[in-house]
Amino acid sequence: MSKRPLDILNNTLGKSVIIKLKGERIFRGTLEGYDIHMNLVLENAEELKEGETENKLGTVVVRGDNVVYISP
Amino acid sequence: MSKRPLDILNNTLGKSVIIKLKGERIFRGTLEGYDIHMNLVLENAEELKEGETENKLGTVVVRGDNVVYISP
Amino acid sequence: MSKRPLDILNNTLGKSVIIKLKGERIFRGTLEGYDIHMNLVLENAEELKEGETENKLGTVVVRGDNVVYISP
Amino acid sequence: MSKRPLDILNNTLGKSVIIKLKGERIFRGTLEGYDIHMNLVLENAEELKEGETENKLGTVVVRGDNVVYISP
Amino acid sequence: MSKRPLDILNNTLGKSVIIKLKGERIFRGTLEGYDIHMNLVLENAEELKEGETENKLGTVVVRGDNVVYISP
Amino acid sequence: MSKRPLDILNNTLGKSVIIKLKGERIFRGTLEGYDIHMNLVLENAEELKEGETENKLGTVVVRGDNVVYISP
Amino acid sequence: MSKRPLDILNNTLGKSVIIKLKGERIFRGTLEGYDIHMNLVLENAEELKEGETENKLGTVVVRGDNVVYISP
Repeated sequence: MSKRPLDILNNTLGKSVIIKLKGERIFRGTLEGYDIHMNLVLENAEELKEGETENKLGTVVVRGDNVVYISP
Repeated sequence: MSKRPLDILNNTLGKSVIIKLKGERIFRGTLEGYDIHMNLVLENAEELKEGETENKLGTVVVRGDNVVYISP
Repeated sequence: MSKRPLDILNNTLGKSVIIKLKGERIFRGTLEGYDIHMNLVLENAEELKEGETENKLGTVVVRGDNVVYISP
Repeated sequence: MSKRPLDILNNTLGKSVIIKLKGERIFRGTLEGYDIHMNLVLENAEELKEGETENKLGTVVVRGDNVVYISP
Repeated sequence: MSKRPLDILNNTLGKSVIIKLKGERIFRGTLEGYDIHMNLVLENAEELKEGETENKLGTVVVRGDNVVYISP
Repeated sequence: MSKRPLDILNNTLGKSVIIKLKGERIFRGTLEGYDIHMNLVLENAEELKEGETENKLGTVVVRGDNVVYISP
Repeated sequence: MSKRPLDILNNTLGKSVIIKLKGERIFRGTLEGYDIHMNLVLENAEELKEGETENKLGTVVVRGDNVVYISP
């Protein structure tokens, strides 16, 4: 049975995710929302650099066209 | 319960936000408006460089396709 | 009350604006028109480099996808 | 009264224009047509480099997504 | 008889694939889902560098606009 | 009277054209077809480098989003 | 009589093609399918570098927005 990409995001709500953005930017946080463009809402979001927390952002709305992948 | 990205923006109206744009440009200001493309209206907007105010802009309309993230 | 991005442009018609384009190009001029793509019409437009007038253009139609921000 | 970007192009038909394209390419020619994507038809078109004619092209159809600005 | 691109993806569900992304990033994993934008769901996904596993990701949702090719 | 960009292409069918693509690639050939995206069909197509034939391609379908200009 | 770009692709089904992608990547293979986005299905696909086979891929689905040209 096929798993639609947005269904995976829906099943991941409230859980921790890694988000890789274009230009090698990485975020970690709790996925609290998304829409069909893959615009995302993260809470307790941190920006990572070489695996270390570089920047604590709290809530963040990421514009979907920056996303490379989302890994629950 | 899911939090839609545009709902978060709606809840943030009148509050201070950090906006990261492509090409590492960062703005700080009060979010006064947005639309479905994530075009944004900021007031008391400042452009930051390495955490310092580089440029005071007052009101600014940012075209949505430049946005990486918005953090309330 | 929310201020829609295009409403801000509408309120700015006939007034002086700074336009920042992708690739660091900056224009100053009087905003005489726009459309939903943020295509813009400027009059008495000048292209600026490091704050100095580099190029006087008179009327100019800017294609919206180049725009980073518009500051009244 | 607002001047729509495409109205300006319409008023410029048959007149000389400067077109700046992404990647710093500049054309000069007579605007003979356009469409809603800002695809353009120029006649007697020349490609300029540092203000000098580099290349005479006669008629040229420019795809709109390359356009930065059009100056009548 | 023509084989539509999305039909090939459909026939590949549950099987191992190599995904090449823009910027030379390569993933290997089991294709578990896709949509019309070529957004993809991989399971047991690994990011490869010069043919070696660099990063084990488990489940990953790849945004379609990053995809160069998918090879079953 | 305005000349629509696609009308110019239509009038050029069966004639020789120069096509400039993003990234400075230049083709010369006979325009045999096009569509509204400016996808093009060339026959007897050659890829040029510094005005010299680098590569003879025969028939070629060019995806429109690569096109900078078409000169009949 | 005009030859539409997608008609050329249709006439090429089952035949050998050269595909040039953005970033100078070249594929050779048998065109087995396509859609309106120019997403392509190749079989017996090989990735070429300086005219030599670098990588044998078998079946490959190429996302259309990477395509520069297709030459039957």
